[in-house]
Amino acid sequence: LQLIGMLDSPYVRRVAVALIAARVAFEHKPISLFRHIDAFTKLSPLLKAPSLVTDEGFVLVESSVILDYLGTRSPALAAMRPEGAAAFRRLGVALTVMEKAVQIHYERALRGPGERSESWRERVARQLDVGLAALDADVGEPALTHADIAAACAFGFVTGAIGDVVDTASYARLRAFSAEAETLPPFRAAPPIDGVTAPL
Amino acid sequence: LQLIGMLDSPYVRRVAVALIAARVAFEHKPISLFRHIDAFTKLSPLLKAPSLVTDEGFVLVESSVILDYLGTRSPALAAMRPEGAAAFRRLGVALTVMEKAVQIHYERALRGPGERSESWRERVARQLDVGLAALDADVGEPALTHADIAAACAFGFVTGAIGDVVDTASYARLRAFSAEAETLPPFRAAPPIDGVTAPL
Repeated sequence: LQLIGMLDSPYVRRVAVALIAARVAFEHKPISLFRHIDAFTKLSPLLKAPSLVTDEGFVLVESSVILDYLGTRSPALAAMRPEGAAAFRRLGVALTVMEKAVQIHYERALRGPGERSESWRERVARQLDVGLAALDADVGEPALTHADIAAACAFGFVTGAIGDVVDTASYARLRAFSAEAETLPPFRAAPPIDGVTAPL
Repeated sequence: LQLIGMLDSPYVRRVAVALIAARVAFEHKPISLFRHIDAFTKLSPLLKAPSLVTDEGFVLVESSVILDYLGTRSPALAAMRPEGAAAFRRLGVALTVMEKAVQIHYERALRGPGERSESWRERVARQLDVGLAALDADVGEPALTHADIAAACAFGFVTGAIGDVVDTASYARLRAFSAEAETLPPFRAAPPIDGVTAPL
């Protein structure tokens, strides 16, 4: 198995953390969607991170699809799926926080000043705020489940990529939850920075 | 169960078609993310379509999360999940085609001429083209599975929303696949337009 993509993407990181937690062996290729377009295209022409190259050579995209597929091969990974509506709710909100944070990041990172939309940014920032508040009200002790891994990876991305424009201090419970999650070995083995996953 | 969102969203539609195919009863509320923001916010403050309101009052978002949750309650829906890497690949590509088509649609629908990025549009259009070509090479007879429903809903959205800027005729196999899918009763009961799902 090859996991293609940088760990500064919360989608790549949630897959890496889950695979490490479930002790599914994989090779990590930290190739950038922006700085290594040719190398990425060669492996996964859709230019989507994460991409998973299976042992049979299939290239899978979409973090939830990748985790579902690997769940059919690893009981430990399948056991990390949500159980009950509350856990599914948390996972959906966490994925939405990732999406909104990436949109805000892209709005300023990929567009010139004359290509930005203030009404779009405001709409997305409001959704992000609602999502962060929902996670803040919802989280407890972090567990190595898909929902909690996604929640912690989402908050880690918010803090790292757009922490200067989001009042992350106002989500005290989510901050404590994420800080604790980051102490867990699978999180420490996949730090949200450029570079490869480290051994446990 | 309440499904919130308009069927002109391919994400809403894939959920509606799957629920109808699995004969899971639900109430459809065709509320728009843009024209009915207050009504939508009251039901689902994240402003994400689809949103699913469960009988216990949980609000779930993200189409794949919603379908996974309902799969824990409906064996017929669980049986529609991908089996084997090829089906997971198709589902991931179909979701990517939806994402890229929505991004191109939003770029022109939600932004003024002075807020658009040509380099972003080109990048996304290239990804969309790769995704459509991959689906075109992959599809056969449409089945009522999550992967095939997503593929047909993705192509339906491309045709309907951005068909004027995508050469849909060049994907002949995908066109035939989608045309056949659209004749199936669950697709006919959830047409990709404003309005509610119809009875089978």
